[in-house]
Amino acid sequence: MHLSKRITSMQESPIRKLVPYALQAKKEGKKVYHLNIGQPDIETPASFMQSIRDFKEKVIAYSLSQGSPELIEAIIKYYKKYDMSFEQDEILITNGGSEALLFSIIAVADAGDELLIPEPFYTNYNGFSSAVDVNVAAITCKAEDGFHLPTREEIENLIKPRTKAIVLSNPGNPTGVVYTKEEINMIAGLAKEYNLFVIADEVYREFVYDNLGYTSFGNIKEIEDRVIIIDSVSKRYSACGARIGSIASKNKELIKQILKLCQGRLCVPTLEQVGATRLYGTPNSYFEEVISEYENRRNIVHESLNDMPGVLCKKPTGAFYVVAKLPVDNAEEFVIWMLKEFNINGETVMLAPAEGFYATEGLGRDEVRIAYVLNETDLKKAMNILKLGLEKYAKK
Amino acid sequence: MHLSKRITSMQESPIRKLVPYALQAKKEGKKVYHLNIGQPDIETPASFMQSIRDFKEKVIAYSLSQGSPELIEAIIKYYKKYDMSFEQDEILITNGGSEALLFSIIAVADAGDELLIPEPFYTNYNGFSSAVDVNVAAITCKAEDGFHLPTREEIENLIKPRTKAIVLSNPGNPTGVVYTKEEINMIAGLAKEYNLFVIADEVYREFVYDNLGYTSFGNIKEIEDRVIIIDSVSKRYSACGARIGSIASKNKELIKQILKLCQGRLCVPTLEQVGATRLYGTPNSYFEEVISEYENRRNIVHESLNDMPGVLCKKPTGAFYVVAKLPVDNAEEFVIWMLKEFNINGETVMLAPAEGFYATEGLGRDEVRIAYVLNETDLKKAMNILKLGLEKYAKK
Repeated sequence: MHLSKRITSMQESPIRKLVPYALQAKKEGKKVYHLNIGQPDIETPASFMQSIRDFKEKVIAYSLSQGSPELIEAIIKYYKKYDMSFEQDEILITNGGSEALLFSIIAVADAGDELLIPEPFYTNYNGFSSAVDVNVAAITCKAEDGFHLPTREEIENLIKPRTKAIVLSNPGNPTGVVYTKEEINMIAGLAKEYNLFVIADEVYREFVYDNLGYTSFGNIKEIEDRVIIIDSVSKRYSACGARIGSIASKNKELIKQILKLCQGRLCVPTLEQVGATRLYGTPNSYFEEVISEYENRRNIVHESLNDMPGVLCKKPTGAFYVVAKLPVDNAEEFVIWMLKEFNINGETVMLAPAEGFYATEGLGRDEVRIAYVLNETDLKKAMNILKLGLEKYAKK
Repeated sequence: MHLSKRITSMQESPIRKLVPYALQAKKEGKKVYHLNIGQPDIETPASFMQSIRDFKEKVIAYSLSQGSPELIEAIIKYYKKYDMSFEQDEILITNGGSEALLFSIIAVADAGDELLIPEPFYTNYNGFSSAVDVNVAAITCKAEDGFHLPTREEIENLIKPRTKAIVLSNPGNPTGVVYTKEEINMIAGLAKEYNLFVIADEVYREFVYDNLGYTSFGNIKEIEDRVIIIDSVSKRYSACGARIGSIASKNKELIKQILKLCQGRLCVPTLEQVGATRLYGTPNSYFEEVISEYENRRNIVHESLNDMPGVLCKKPTGAFYVVAKLPVDNAEEFVIWMLKEFNINGETVMLAPAEGFYATEGLGRDEVRIAYVLNETDLKKAMNILKLGLEKYAKK
């Protein structure tokens, strides 16, 4: 018996495949600062655990396939703050943003169809697509442009008869880019002209810095039936392990069809939905603190990087990532070298090589993604270790 | 923009599509006994909530993609009781048995490949397959045979070049059949001869009555690299809302490949894994009580059915379902009639029409699935209402 082509050809997580090197470094007694994964260190609001502790049912029963009405209501209320108006039958609760994405891809694309995605992109866009036989075409964005989109014409040239949707993460993972209103409108115009869906991954919606404005695809009335908003509590409330995401769309037929997939997997965990419902009531003051914390970290990372000779990094304005071009030939080799060969007083740093975030062969080989998910003190130490590492690596 | 063919052609849940009729009946003040869904009424062991209440971490962080080592260890220990021996890298934790199934299908079958499944079957086998463009061919089993398998030759004739796996639920949902050792060996022999995987859905493993022996596919050494065991805490510990399932296989390469899908969705909820780990420590006395309770219910349902003129139902020996042939032309119409037109002192019964459990057009039209998930008193009342309903329906 053989395994399927679609699974054997699926890309291995470029982040997770270096984990053995980190484990080995730790075994040798090294401390490793993890800047390679998007696991925030911020505390989950206590209301999450409290509401779960208060859960009194004797049977942990199935929830509704579409999600608990209370959680959907909480999300409707949340979107209102952003001038987006959804009804109960326009939202589905999913197992994290991941399932929201997978189900959306299955719903808009048949085997052999294509998605258009700005690269570098969240690698799981690729993974899920190939798992269900959907092709990915990349809109190449460059470090020199701060990973903003290329011209309308360049994107237009990539649209083919089997292109079904444009998938964007905004604010962007892994780049930290926040698209301008003009960029959002440009994509909306293309979606309308070429009859495409827009799968808008907006899980980092709050994480926008420098008092920049933010435009959600949910605010573009003219294409409201084409927009599928992917959302999640993971980053917003630092509750990655809760695995609560959602799909929102004004296209009721789309939601009705995806509901069949939701029914197939029966429901999302009952307790996590109870907790997530309470998370959506988190006061704004929480975000003010968190955003100011991340903005400060972003500044530290950006300034440190620009202080390193040969490093290119335009100031990112969102999420908690940055992609930097390093003065090395092969960032993966450098990352492994940092784990295997380098330390400052027994401490080293783990970064994510960025090549895996690109669909186009050869791109990103000299780039890394840094997730600023450590507190100020640790982050400063980690950036200093990176600086010294780069210096030593250059002399090799 | 169009939705994909695979999602629009996906079968709607045959159980859930009648829900509006039940809601309407309740609105009219009727009490509805639900024999239509597999939501057990048995209490979840208290250790589940207790261990979650005791969870002390301040950040609800990602768990490992393969699942928490503690939970995997608990499952390894559990399988040992059934003479199955697995290692840490032979088990993956999933979002319920549902995700275990979906991932297994993606791993063994490409678009256009085929699965062979005894019908009537759990409808989501069909749903997931069509969502990922995999065809289903049915091995027809009959009420008259107690839904046991047909001859080896009949099954052999259904195997085609693109058949990749045989999927079986044992004990069976919706039929309650428990396959004999001879049937299991016959399937194992076919799998070997025709180079197929066996996807063994054994989530009802404990629910076997009349002191019958139970043979797991995990006990057939000769095909251990072909067997994928789907499991779940949902029914075993009456924890459907926890959504914790697992994949176990001695085929390490298969597990390694499916791990890529697991990495794509990052992880299964952290808290639910904490709770599930404790569930696996539930003492045997719990099962003794639960099994004796279900066996008693099975007897009530089976005897009541055989007491109704024109009803055919061989005694089922496992799970908590039975498929019965009713003396009606169209069971769906009868089920709707029971909800809309019939009641005994303001009470009625909801059943699941069985046609949706068949892949072969026209089969099962006069059959229903009954889930015996009510206590003895309610179950007796419900069966009596069904009897009176059938009598009145016959006179229409």
